[in-house]
Amino acid sequence: MITRLSQLFVRTLREDPADAEVASHRWLVRAGYIRRTAPGIYTWLPLGLRVLKLVEEIVREEMDAMGAQEVRFPALLPREPYEATHRWTEYGQNLFRLKDRKGGDYLLGPTHEEMFTLLVKDLYSSYKDLPLSIYQIQTKYRDEARPRAGLLRGREFVMKDSYSFDVDDAGLDASYEAHRQAYIRIFDRLGLDYVIVKAMSGAMGGSASEEFLAISASGEDTFVRSPGGYAANVEAVSIAAPATVDAGDLPAARAVDTPGTGTIVELVAAANAAFPRADRPWTAADTLKNVVFKLVHPDGRSELLIVGVPGDRDIDAKRLEAAVSPAEAAPVADDDFAANPALVKGYIGPVSVVDGAAVQHLGAEGPLKVRYLTDPRVVPGTAWITGANVIDTHLVDVVAGRDFTADGVLDVAEIRDGDPAPDGSGPLSLARGIEMGHIFQLGRKYAEALGLKVLDQNGKLVTVTMGSYGVGVSRAVAAVAEATCDDHGLAWPRALAPFDVQVLATGKGEEIAAAAEQLALDLDAAGLRVLLDDRKASPGVKFADAEIMGMPTSVVVGRGLVDGLVEVRDRASGDRVEVPLAEAVGHLVALVTA
Amino acid sequence: MITRLSQLFVRTLREDPADAEVASHRWLVRAGYIRRTAPGIYTWLPLGLRVLKLVEEIVREEMDAMGAQEVRFPALLPREPYEATHRWTEYGQNLFRLKDRKGGDYLLGPTHEEMFTLLVKDLYSSYKDLPLSIYQIQTKYRDEARPRAGLLRGREFVMKDSYSFDVDDAGLDASYEAHRQAYIRIFDRLGLDYVIVKAMSGAMGGSASEEFLAISASGEDTFVRSPGGYAANVEAVSIAAPATVDAGDLPAARAVDTPGTGTIVELVAAANAAFPRADRPWTAADTLKNVVFKLVHPDGRSELLIVGVPGDRDIDAKRLEAAVSPAEAAPVADDDFAANPALVKGYIGPVSVVDGAAVQHLGAEGPLKVRYLTDPRVVPGTAWITGANVIDTHLVDVVAGRDFTADGVLDVAEIRDGDPAPDGSGPLSLARGIEMGHIFQLGRKYAEALGLKVLDQNGKLVTVTMGSYGVGVSRAVAAVAEATCDDHGLAWPRALAPFDVQVLATGKGEEIAAAAEQLALDLDAAGLRVLLDDRKASPGVKFADAEIMGMPTSVVVGRGLVDGLVEVRDRASGDRVEVPLAEAVGHLVALVTA
Repeated sequence: MITRLSQLFVRTLREDPADAEVASHRWLVRAGYIRRTAPGIYTWLPLGLRVLKLVEEIVREEMDAMGAQEVRFPALLPREPYEATHRWTEYGQNLFRLKDRKGGDYLLGPTHEEMFTLLVKDLYSSYKDLPLSIYQIQTKYRDEARPRAGLLRGREFVMKDSYSFDVDDAGLDASYEAHRQAYIRIFDRLGLDYVIVKAMSGAMGGSASEEFLAISASGEDTFVRSPGGYAANVEAVSIAAPATVDAGDLPAARAVDTPGTGTIVELVAAANAAFPRADRPWTAADTLKNVVFKLVHPDGRSELLIVGVPGDRDIDAKRLEAAVSPAEAAPVADDDFAANPALVKGYIGPVSVVDGAAVQHLGAEGPLKVRYLTDPRVVPGTAWITGANVIDTHLVDVVAGRDFTADGVLDVAEIRDGDPAPDGSGPLSLARGIEMGHIFQLGRKYAEALGLKVLDQNGKLVTVTMGSYGVGVSRAVAAVAEATCDDHGLAWPRALAPFDVQVLATGKGEEIAAAAEQLALDLDAAGLRVLLDDRKASPGVKFADAEIMGMPTSVVVGRGLVDGLVEVRDRASGDRVEVPLAEAVGHLVALVTA
Repeated sequence: MITRLSQLFVRTLREDPADAEVASHRWLVRAGYIRRTAPGIYTWLPLGLRVLKLVEEIVREEMDAMGAQEVRFPALLPREPYEATHRWTEYGQNLFRLKDRKGGDYLLGPTHEEMFTLLVKDLYSSYKDLPLSIYQIQTKYRDEARPRAGLLRGREFVMKDSYSFDVDDAGLDASYEAHRQAYIRIFDRLGLDYVIVKAMSGAMGGSASEEFLAISASGEDTFVRSPGGYAANVEAVSIAAPATVDAGDLPAARAVDTPGTGTIVELVAAANAAFPRADRPWTAADTLKNVVFKLVHPDGRSELLIVGVPGDRDIDAKRLEAAVSPAEAAPVADDDFAANPALVKGYIGPVSVVDGAAVQHLGAEGPLKVRYLTDPRVVPGTAWITGANVIDTHLVDVVAGRDFTADGVLDVAEIRDGDPAPDGSGPLSLARGIEMGHIFQLGRKYAEALGLKVLDQNGKLVTVTMGSYGVGVSRAVAAVAEATCDDHGLAWPRALAPFDVQVLATGKGEEIAAAAEQLALDLDAAGLRVLLDDRKASPGVKFADAEIMGMPTSVVVGRGLVDGLVEVRDRASGDRVEVPLAEAVGHLVALVTA
């Protein structure tokens, strides 16, 4: 059955939607594939729904092929299982919570680890039942603080999530690897340029974890790669800490007057002017910058946290967010400083000089009782210029391990192009990507919390070990659009196009309309999915709409018809070729099935 | 690819689930098709999901065939459109409401009239764009007061909802009829024994409305039929009011002592004893029973309502519910009587005798200011025995229209087998059914509330007229199970079976296992969907599970194999036939594709 554009429920827009930040969002709306219903919540129009279903089907085929079995959970879930794993609280404001008419607590599922664990516990009891991989393609909900970029970060979205269940670690490794291979096939079929990177597991818990990132400047994730093959999300990079330094002959920490040096740049300039080094100038890397955050825990409790990093590096907001999750780190306001006069803004440091002697100022055991964590580069023996906790004053030769001890390490400083890869595989380069898939070795966290055990070969109860694996299905529609669109509109790869061919009748005259219609019917009979632009509209409008809508191939039935010719256009390359009408079906079938 | 029962994620249960009231619920759970997650909220296991998808596909094919176009709306919806049509309030406790992190009001969509209306308003502007029918197959939410019977009345469920948009009433009639025909094809293909009945439109608004009810004793709906072709949900029956009576020579209403006659039975007995009629005995139909309700409006406002019906009929709770919707009628409690001493429980009537004269007691204009509605049979001129509003006292010859006037008619008395059809087509018979589909002529209610207008042929803005059409997709799974299951388990019709054939290897020996496996592979190669029971289990367990799981055909590879025979069993009829193994594939293909 051919689809006629005169009857298709679609309207292209001449103007960009006001809220569209990225190309895929702009074009999916302008081409009539989706419409915004609320922030981060979209409606699928017929063209968009066709693409979504094609993505779903590719994911389903590959999950089935690896032996995973499809199930479907509700989106509306009771509180209790998520209470048992603490995620009811840990998800914080990202969770949509609601009450039913009887006052019972429910949530809209952001991910279903708890429910799958309980279902397997309900059905299975023996090692003989395992391994098991089950999945669903289902609508999920997260109350994102900043929904953005259309389908790329929504609040209601379609995900494939699967879960593996094994009796031991070797089984989990095998299930993880099977998913990894299935994901490679899925993202290959989607035609995405992607990279597999080490990842943080965030609120999921668990150990080994990798992300599949579609490489895209519009992506929200930053990842690093080295020539030697290291690849990681910046959130997951653990920098290689330098070796401990012998600080044997360094002088004692001493205070210096540094008026008006509330910034690192001012401080370095003042240091080089007032107390220059003999061997080289001071640089920002010689300074220790101490940044104050308010850490808000999921239960609402909050505390101050001070993070010390070399002054030449900023703190990376996403690395910080990932490191403190499920707590959230907020910048401190002036009234927090006002409430803590011992924190002298711009001059904070781990050490104070009291009666001529260095005394630790920061840290849970210090006089302020404020937790103090430092960058891995702040190893024992390293010496720093840092704040003296007195206005317009810094200390020089403050030595880690001698003058102060931090409460721990927090590896959240920015990663820069050229930084060494942690595994020694060469300098890192940074790029951005869209998270398309995520595979985790969850381990026994959920099975333990919810009591999923089976009898092993020896009749002994053992806790099951699990993996959790996600694919952003609706996000994939946007990611492919983002990767393939151009200045004129969408340009789908064949595997995801709503139609194989768009037939355009251009020019007046019943002959042209009749020939276009017959060609559309013939293409349909040959098994192609055909969209016929039969509207009473100008050729210009039809050409523009065909480019916006982005079918991979269009056929123009117009002026050339008097010579028995039609024009075949390739959307992606812009190539045009004239083909005899009589050969058009064969030509197009060959193109589409190539 | 064949599916092996040894690996399929399923467990059959030997015991009925405690909460299963109906057979379909019992067997869908016991056969491992679904699992309860929360009240009225279910998880689909692989077997169940296969059936659900088959139903979805039948619905989708027929909707596409009638020219409707598929879209997909979110389930999480903003408040504003539902506020504009008052349904945010009118849905009362049936609506799941929630707030996002910014305090914005959202709901989980119970039905999507508002959203479809706004989408068409967004895209379309001319009569040339119409007619249009668009639909979705999507998860919906209703916070039912009494979720029951498994999938038959859930709180999260799958529906197909479609909406038609026309420029005039003739267009709406055509769109409605097209849906009606598509529904007939859908329910025919589902193999349901169903009836199309007149329906109330409830909270939907609108005029013409019909329901497709699967005839089933487990159904929640009661419908009536007459030999002449009248068919209606009892909620939608409007009884034919008798003609007005001339009450010219009736004596004035007079009080009689009727001690201890708080019930109609007691009253009739007392009347025949104390003041018998000359022509015939008094019957309950001579009495007027006045029942007090508390009417609670969606905005929380409440008022008393008194309903007068002939004493031989009860008030039908569902007819009442439908008639007062979106308000709800609750029985009154003793403290309501205590708060209204003028309402004498057991002796309430529309008239009091004050100083020897009949004075109207009930009604919005009466001294009590309580709304009083009467059954259509209470026409002017009819005389009644009814309460005197004094303990142990009734009035005789209280004449409607002479002694009292009600505030209006309320047609909510029970309908009984043998009652005349309103259209004169003969006596009614009652039966029960499961509501599978509902088609409405909504008219212009939603288009007006949300401003959906298009330019007509004359360039004039006209309000679009709409239809709304629903199919219970997940409910259909249960309805078909309910209609086809027996005392041994499920018994699917071929069109909805998760697998065409279940192959059972029964008996020990590698030869049997190998032959069963080869037969399964051959059937798969012939295009059948095959479930192979390859478990190490006894023949008894395999036979029982095959009956519970309910594939239409099973093939037993067992004892007969030495003679080159397999046994083909028909699940529904129980018929068994021995077939040579060599002919089994041909035999089964013929069965399945018959």
